[in-house]
Amino acid sequence: MNDKEYMRLALQLAKKGCGWTSPNPMVGAVVVKEGRTIGQGWHQRYGQAHAERNALASCTEDPQGATLYVTLEPCCHYGKQPPCVDAILDAGIHRVVVGSADPNPLVAGKGIAILRAHGIDVTENVLQEECDALNKVFFHYITTKRPFVSMKYAMTMDGKIATYTGASKWITGEIARNHVQRQRHRFRGIMVGVGTILADDPLLTCRIEGGRDPVRIICDTHLRTPLQSQVVMTAKQVPTILATCCGDPEKQAAYQQAGCRVLCLEAHCGHVNLLQLMEQLGQEQIDSILLEGGGTLNWSALESGIVQQVQAYITPKLFGGRDAKAPIEGAGVPLPDAAFRLKNSRLEQLGKDFLIESEVEYPCLPESWKKSEQ
Amino acid sequence: MNDKEYMRLALQLAKKGCGWTSPNPMVGAVVVKEGRTIGQGWHQRYGQAHAERNALASCTEDPQGATLYVTLEPCCHYGKQPPCVDAILDAGIHRVVVGSADPNPLVAGKGIAILRAHGIDVTENVLQEECDALNKVFFHYITTKRPFVSMKYAMTMDGKIATYTGASKWITGEIARNHVQRQRHRFRGIMVGVGTILADDPLLTCRIEGGRDPVRIICDTHLRTPLQSQVVMTAKQVPTILATCCGDPEKQAAYQQAGCRVLCLEAHCGHVNLLQLMEQLGQEQIDSILLEGGGTLNWSALESGIVQQVQAYITPKLFGGRDAKAPIEGAGVPLPDAAFRLKNSRLEQLGKDFLIESEVEYPCLPESWKKSEQ
Repeated sequence: MNDKEYMRLALQLAKKGCGWTSPNPMVGAVVVKEGRTIGQGWHQRYGQAHAERNALASCTEDPQGATLYVTLEPCCHYGKQPPCVDAILDAGIHRVVVGSADPNPLVAGKGIAILRAHGIDVTENVLQEECDALNKVFFHYITTKRPFVSMKYAMTMDGKIATYTGASKWITGEIARNHVQRQRHRFRGIMVGVGTILADDPLLTCRIEGGRDPVRIICDTHLRTPLQSQVVMTAKQVPTILATCCGDPEKQAAYQQAGCRVLCLEAHCGHVNLLQLMEQLGQEQIDSILLEGGGTLNWSALESGIVQQVQAYITPKLFGGRDAKAPIEGAGVPLPDAAFRLKNSRLEQLGKDFLIESEVEYPCLPESWKKSEQ
Repeated sequence: MNDKEYMRLALQLAKKGCGWTSPNPMVGAVVVKEGRTIGQGWHQRYGQAHAERNALASCTEDPQGATLYVTLEPCCHYGKQPPCVDAILDAGIHRVVVGSADPNPLVAGKGIAILRAHGIDVTENVLQEECDALNKVFFHYITTKRPFVSMKYAMTMDGKIATYTGASKWITGEIARNHVQRQRHRFRGIMVGVGTILADDPLLTCRIEGGRDPVRIICDTHLRTPLQSQVVMTAKQVPTILATCCGDPEKQAAYQQAGCRVLCLEAHCGHVNLLQLMEQLGQEQIDSILLEGGGTLNWSALESGIVQQVQAYITPKLFGGRDAKAPIEGAGVPLPDAAFRLKNSRLEQLGKDFLIESEVEYPCLPESWKKSEQ
């Protein structure tokens, strides 16, 4: 096996942490000595040991003189865990092969520099593209301190997310719906507008076995979420945040007693300031959000510049209907040239349905971002 | 080379007739003698010789005792051309390999039966799926006497065919737009509603070199197409049909003088009876129509049961907009279970854009069809 093949194994290990490491990255590591894989490990859960230490601890023979493959540059600072470079030096590793560089521009390269200063042979950027892709959420979060937001919707081939009566169960088939459930496990938060709660009364949990429920975030400018809704009734079991502009302490108290957290935010164009919300959620270590909004919230989110990715599930059906619901409504852009552009589109077939996953290419930071960054 | 490989060659030859054979099928033929390809031919243009005769005429040595590969069962009746089975018998062919059976249930198998009765060894259904797919338009037309209609639209990833101001230039990129031009060459007719004429004043011609302009069909219930519109101004060069419910002879005369044909039809739910229109166009040997309608016409067409295929070009952009235009509007279905279902979806990447091509799966013939078929 060559460097790329060992790195591919490290990538496979890293993915085992999916859904559990947030807001840390997924990392995998492999220890190889004289052509034998003698240790494997991955970062299993936030707060627990890093991949490098797990791989070294698993070694079936002395790692002295071995090569360590790791998907992300080893850390060199004290966090919840001691620095991994120390463990690598202590183990007597002779060569380190790295996938992604540390995305944090303030620390990038320091881990590698320390290893080299101690005479270790370091090879960088092996399968870098795959390693970067694995942690696009982490890379975004660590550099912006805001969650990575993926706007997800399921629509017919004529662009409807519900019929004119508002009915939307079901649009896609079982394979695509299971895929959505896996996203709910992967993302740390799930966000909808109060309109979705009023229309569908959803639970918004992750319905796969062994899955992790995302933190539920309801954008509810005027606190209209019914106290009898499923999200409020289960708020003591599943973390639930109401983001509102309604400062009425009595109204807020009712939700708080039910177990919800209430975040009172500024208004922006008549709705919750989404950028401020993202900053607060980022501070609370919510690194990623699956946005399952209706057309109004989706437009506000896009316009606010908080959306990084679009996941469009497309089903081979047609609803028609001038008044049927579309995935993105609001005002919209006036001309095709003003469209929000997407890039790096990736297509997947899910049974009879399709998934197109694309990154949002903001032409430049929206005005609101610039202001907040000054 | 084996049977499948020779049939694949015959298929490639058949495709050279694309756009020119209508309402005849595309057919290709290869003559093989002792492992040598000694003749090749295809049906080049409606009214001209069939593929079998062209292949036999091209033979570089005597076809006596050779094998003939042909994508469609040879004809056995006099049409514009004498029957191909006669030519095959005259040439002394010993074996015939056939792709598709004749789709017309009244004559299917007769050509093959005559060949066998004359002691020729016949092998059927070689690459049948590919051969059938090549002529799905012909198969539909010959069995229903109505044109094969493909609903084509270009939409953003949030399902918009125009922004809220009505602007739609351009949605997709150049590669996808060229693909559309090739469809205009392939289909015998192109159909839009008067709304499209009023909004965009399009020419609706085929803009590829050596391409064939489709017959332009404007659904114009009240004859509102401007006499100064591009379609009317060029009606003496490019065949143009106005389908209307307006019986006013003076109004009709103005269009006729400009070179348009006016078809006066029954009204159905306030618009031209599309089923009746399809029957009339079928009688005029228009075997295929590219429907480039707006949301209203598209819905009427779908509801009337005249659409066989959907071609959705999807671009990685987002317009948003509650009032942006959708590909299919009208009333729409009330519930997801009542959706028009699509099948056999085929996906193609065209530059940054995607094309999903699907067949419409009418659950049963719509009421209007049944009535007309009694």
